[in-house]
Amino acid sequence: MKTVPRSKVIYSFSSQHKPAEHIKPGEIVLLETEDALGGQIKNEENSLDVLDWSKVDGATGPIFIEGAEPGDTLAVEILDIKIDEKGLIVTVPKHGILGEKPFKPSTKMAITKDGYVHFDEGVRVRADPMIGTIGVAPESDEIPSGSLGRHGGNMDVKMLTAGTKLYLPVFVEGALFAAGDMHAVQADGELCVSAIEVAGEALLKFNLIKNRKPKWPILEAHGSFAILACGKTLDEAASSASRAAVKALMREYAWSFEMAYMFGSLTVDLEINQVVDPKKGVRAVISKEFMSLDSLLT
Amino acid sequence: MKTVPRSKVIYSFSSQHKPAEHIKPGEIVLLETEDALGGQIKNEENSLDVLDWSKVDGATGPIFIEGAEPGDTLAVEILDIKIDEKGLIVTVPKHGILGEKPFKPSTKMAITKDGYVHFDEGVRVRADPMIGTIGVAPESDEIPSGSLGRHGGNMDVKMLTAGTKLYLPVFVEGALFAAGDMHAVQADGELCVSAIEVAGEALLKFNLIKNRKPKWPILEAHGSFAILACGKTLDEAASSASRAAVKALMREYAWSFEMAYMFGSLTVDLEINQVVDPKKGVRAVISKEFMSLDSLLT
Repeated sequence: MKTVPRSKVIYSFSSQHKPAEHIKPGEIVLLETEDALGGQIKNEENSLDVLDWSKVDGATGPIFIEGAEPGDTLAVEILDIKIDEKGLIVTVPKHGILGEKPFKPSTKMAITKDGYVHFDEGVRVRADPMIGTIGVAPESDEIPSGSLGRHGGNMDVKMLTAGTKLYLPVFVEGALFAAGDMHAVQADGELCVSAIEVAGEALLKFNLIKNRKPKWPILEAHGSFAILACGKTLDEAASSASRAAVKALMREYAWSFEMAYMFGSLTVDLEINQVVDPKKGVRAVISKEFMSLDSLLT
Repeated sequence: MKTVPRSKVIYSFSSQHKPAEHIKPGEIVLLETEDALGGQIKNEENSLDVLDWSKVDGATGPIFIEGAEPGDTLAVEILDIKIDEKGLIVTVPKHGILGEKPFKPSTKMAITKDGYVHFDEGVRVRADPMIGTIGVAPESDEIPSGSLGRHGGNMDVKMLTAGTKLYLPVFVEGALFAAGDMHAVQADGELCVSAIEVAGEALLKFNLIKNRKPKWPILEAHGSFAILACGKTLDEAASSASRAAVKALMREYAWSFEMAYMFGSLTVDLEINQVVDPKKGVRAVISKEFMSLDSLLT
């Protein structure tokens, strides 16, 4: 098993980055990740003013997967996630869904122990560790690791926990995968722009599906598939997720648009990933009872 | 027990409507409802062209609740929902989240039997009957029963099933409650603008909370509260839902805005109700572990 240390950090997804590691399909990799603030904040007195913002939202990688070519799908299985005890959450003026309100920059440290995040005196939340940023190099240019798109990136999907699988479209040779920004817990929305930000380790297994790819990243959970779309607004993201879901239903059942559209009203749940990143994220979730992976790839 | 027959139909929520029935707090009412298309479509050949659109989106009522005054809360317990076997779903050109695409008007009949909606040959979906339209008269003017707002209305919330409770702000004397538009099953989003539309009966129990009211309708389910906000866009609805949730957390824990904002990132799920009605609906869902009804009323 190969380990990619958290010192191998990138701040954009790009075909221009030199691989931190090369692996073969089927290999398992231990990826160490720094917290989203680059480990720069050690206590609550540490003002956000001291932050070097160029060291924020990093991802560990990139990993070159041998044989991955544009038009393929990279399948990433999240075998395990381990997180540090020590985490933190911040408010940043002008950020988050209520960024128009006047409020102060603030930092709250939170320890994760015995399965709970201890947020405040007597107030704890069940931990549910997840990976916030995960993706591959995009087709052209570079995309900051704090943003998101068809290549994945800072999607902040709370479903992205151990035991799930992510299917990413490959745009460049080797795919150039990277991940980071773990959260000890996050709700759908991520209202204030951060969650419980922690350093950690992810145990990942990579495989390839040749010559087929999804339009948007696809998350496979125990009983469902989720199409992870994004857009400038929630409405735009919801439209894109819906369009992809209805097209997949047309393929799955060989139905007309009208039939798939109606069935989507009954079986496709539009759910919010986050409302605070450069693009808003909406997932279209559909039970495996009604959808196969095959219909989600073209 | 009083019964309000489906012949007592209104097409707007308004203080101007004559009550169909008067009840006292604590009373149980059986409300019969027509399907959202007014029962006008009997088979798949029935073209949408024959529809009298003024007879669509009706609600049964209004019910005058004695003692209800502006500033109070009307608590509506959904004790039971019974739906007809025969239901239907339609696509209407220019409607639904993919309304910009060219497609045909179409109608699909679907029978609900043995707990399943039989959508197509070999394709069935578990039934989960819910009430689409439920509300009270608004403060001023009238609001079409196909629209939604702080008064409730056509919210199309799939969580509104038997066993849940809805808290509505009272704006006019007697509240003037009405409900209709049952669905045998609907997913979050209601992509194509309709779900499995059915006639049915709801067994409802009404109570009052005096001199306190929620900003938005509040749904109480088994383990959680949901703030049912809406807006011109999903983004606007998400903001309103978030603002109400953060304010409620400030009250619940006597926290600063910053603390409540951070905690909301961890515990408040922003979820989509529907994306197809005159206003889009987003609910902020929070576990009863972290929220009491008291903090949701002012």
